Amino acid sequence: MPRIAYVNGRYLPHGAACVHIEDRGYQFADGVYEVIHVHRGRLIDSGPHLDRFERSLKALRIAAPMSRAALYLVLGELLARNGIANGLVYFQATRGVAPRDHKFPATVRTSLVATAKRLKDVPREQLENGVAVVTTPDIRWRRSDIKSVSLLANILGKQGAVERGAFEAWQVDANGFVTEGTSTNAWIVTTAGELVTRPLDTGILAGIVRGSLLGLLEGLDARLAERAFSVAEAHAAREAFLTSSSSFLLPVTRIDGVAVGDGRVGPVTRELRRRIIAYVERQSA
Amino acid sequence: MPRIAYVNGRYLPHGAACVHIEDRGYQFADGVYEVIHVHRGRLIDSGPHLDRFERSLKALRIAAPMSRAALYLVLGELLARNGIANGLVYFQATRGVAPRDHKFPATVRTSLVATAKRLKDVPREQLENGVAVVTTPDIRWRRSDIKSVSLLANILGKQGAVERGAFEAWQVDANGFVTEGTSTNAWIVTTAGELVTRPLDTGILAGIVRGSLLGLLEGLDARLAERAFSVAEAHAAREAFLTSSSSFLLPVTRIDGVAVGDGRVGPVTRELRRRIIAYVERQSA
Repeated sequence: MPRIAYVNGRYLPHGAACVHIEDRGYQFADGVYEVIHVHRGRLIDSGPHLDRFERSLKALRIAAPMSRAALYLVLGELLARNGIANGLVYFQATRGVAPRDHKFPATVRTSLVATAKRLKDVPREQLENGVAVVTTPDIRWRRSDIKSVSLLANILGKQGAVERGAFEAWQVDANGFVTEGTSTNAWIVTTAGELVTRPLDTGILAGIVRGSLLGLLEGLDARLAERAFSVAEAHAAREAFLTSSSSFLLPVTRIDGVAVGDGRVGPVTRELRRRIIAYVERQSA
Repeated sequence: MPRIAYVNGRYLPHGAACVHIEDRGYQFADGVYEVIHVHRGRLIDSGPHLDRFERSLKALRIAAPMSRAALYLVLGELLARNGIANGLVYFQATRGVAPRDHKFPATVRTSLVATAKRLKDVPREQLENGVAVVTTPDIRWRRSDIKSVSLLANILGKQGAVERGAFEAWQVDANGFVTEGTSTNAWIVTTAGELVTRPLDTGILAGIVRGSLLGLLEGLDARLAERAFSVAEAHAAREAFLTSSSSFLLPVTRIDGVAVGDGRVGPVTRELRRRIIAYVERQSA
C-alpha cells in the first residue's frame, strides 16, 4: 500500500507531496499544526485537538482551511487510504502562498497538509524503567501556547537531550522553573505527595493529554497542585513523568543524570498511566 | 521572460517550484536564509552575507548545501535567467527532508532554494519625509543572531506596525531597550550628538548594512556609541533611522506617533544615506 499524503485538496503519493517554496510556512514558520493519536481507527481526543487547532489559527489570524466536519472527512480518508488503525495523524495549516513579505498578504488561501503514519508500541523498556530527561534553558519565543511550526528552539533542545543520553529536555524559565518538555508536558510528584504540573499560560502549550489527565485524578494517592516547579524540586521529586499525544504518559526516572526517588517507576505514575490508557481504550471501544 | 527559481539543483518555473512537505524547513522552521541586494548586476556585500550564512548554518549544525563558489554560480545563473540587474536574491537552506522527528535526522541532505526579484526604487516620499516606527515587546526566541526562518514573532511584529500605520516595529527587550526592527536594525542620533545602535549579541541580527555603515563614519558630525538605547531615548532622539539590505537606510521621523526631533529628516541621517549609497555604487562600478 503506497503511502499517501493530503496536500491542499489532493491525495498524493507521499514522495510527490510538495508545497510551493513561497508557502509562508516555509519562509516564515507562519503556520500551526496538530498531531492526533489514532487508536483502533479512532482519533483520540479529537474534539480538544481541533479546539486547540482553531485557537492556534485564531491567535495568528489564519483563516480556517475548511470546516471542522470537512477536516474530519479528510483525516478519515487519509487514514483509510493509508490503512492505518493505530498511529498518528499530523496536519499543518499555514497562511498560504504569497510573494515574500513579512506583513500578512492581502489575499491568500490557507494551505493544509496532512500525513498519517503507523506507530510502534512504546518500548517496554521505557515503560518499565522510565526515561531520562535533562534540563535546559527555555530559549523559545513568548507564545509557546500557540502550537506553531516555529519549533527551532524545540528541536535544538531535543537534540541536546539526545546527545546527553536523554529522551527529552525539560526547558527552564529565567526564574529557574520548568516550563515543559520540547514536545511533552512535565509532571512531578513531590515527597509531600503533591502532583505538580505548570498551570497554563503563554509559556507552555496546553497539552491535550495533560488536560485529559487532569480529569482522571479522582481518588488518586496524590493531591493536584497546578503550579510551576523548580529544577531543584524536580531533582528532589519522588516521581516524575511526561505526557504527550504520541506516547500518552512515560515515567521519568532520571533528571540531569540523577535518579528520581529510588530510580524506579513510582506508584502514582503507574496508576496515571493505567488511567490514561483506560481512557483511550474507552474512547476507541 | 518567465520567472525562474532554483530548487535543489534545478532551475524551475516559479509556479512549479516546490519542496517536500517533510522538508524540515516547513515542519520545524529548521533553516536559515539570506537576502542580498543586487545593484547593476553585482551582489552587494556578498562576502559578509555569505560569511553570515555560514555562521547561521554552523550555529544550527546544518551542512553547507554547496561550496561558496558553487553558490555564487547558482545566484549568478538565477539572476541571468531572470534578467535581473537591480533587485534582491533570496536563498534559504534547510536541514533537508526527513520523517518528522524533533531530533536531527541521522542522514539528510541540506535543501537549497533561491529566488530573485526586481526591486522598485525606494519611494521618494520615504526618503524625503521618513517613515514611522512603533515600539512593541520583543517576544522572539533568544537566538535572533541566527538568521533563521523561525520568523513568526517578526511577522506578527511587522503586521502590528502596519496596522498602527507604521513601516516597522522596533522590538523592546524586558529592560525597556530597543533590540532591533522586525527586518531592520535600529539607530538614533541623540541630542548630545551620539550615533547609537545596539552592540551585537544573541538578541539581534548582525545586519550587513549595519556593519558596512560602521566602516563609513569617519569625520561624521556625530560620535558612535555602540550601546543599547531605551524607548525613552528613542522618543527624545534628534534623529533616527533604520538599515536593511533591501532599502539600505531609511530615515525614521515618527516613533510611536511622536515626531523625532523637528519631524524632518536630519543631517546625520542624510549624510549616512549618501555614504551607504556611494559605497554601494563603488562596489558595483
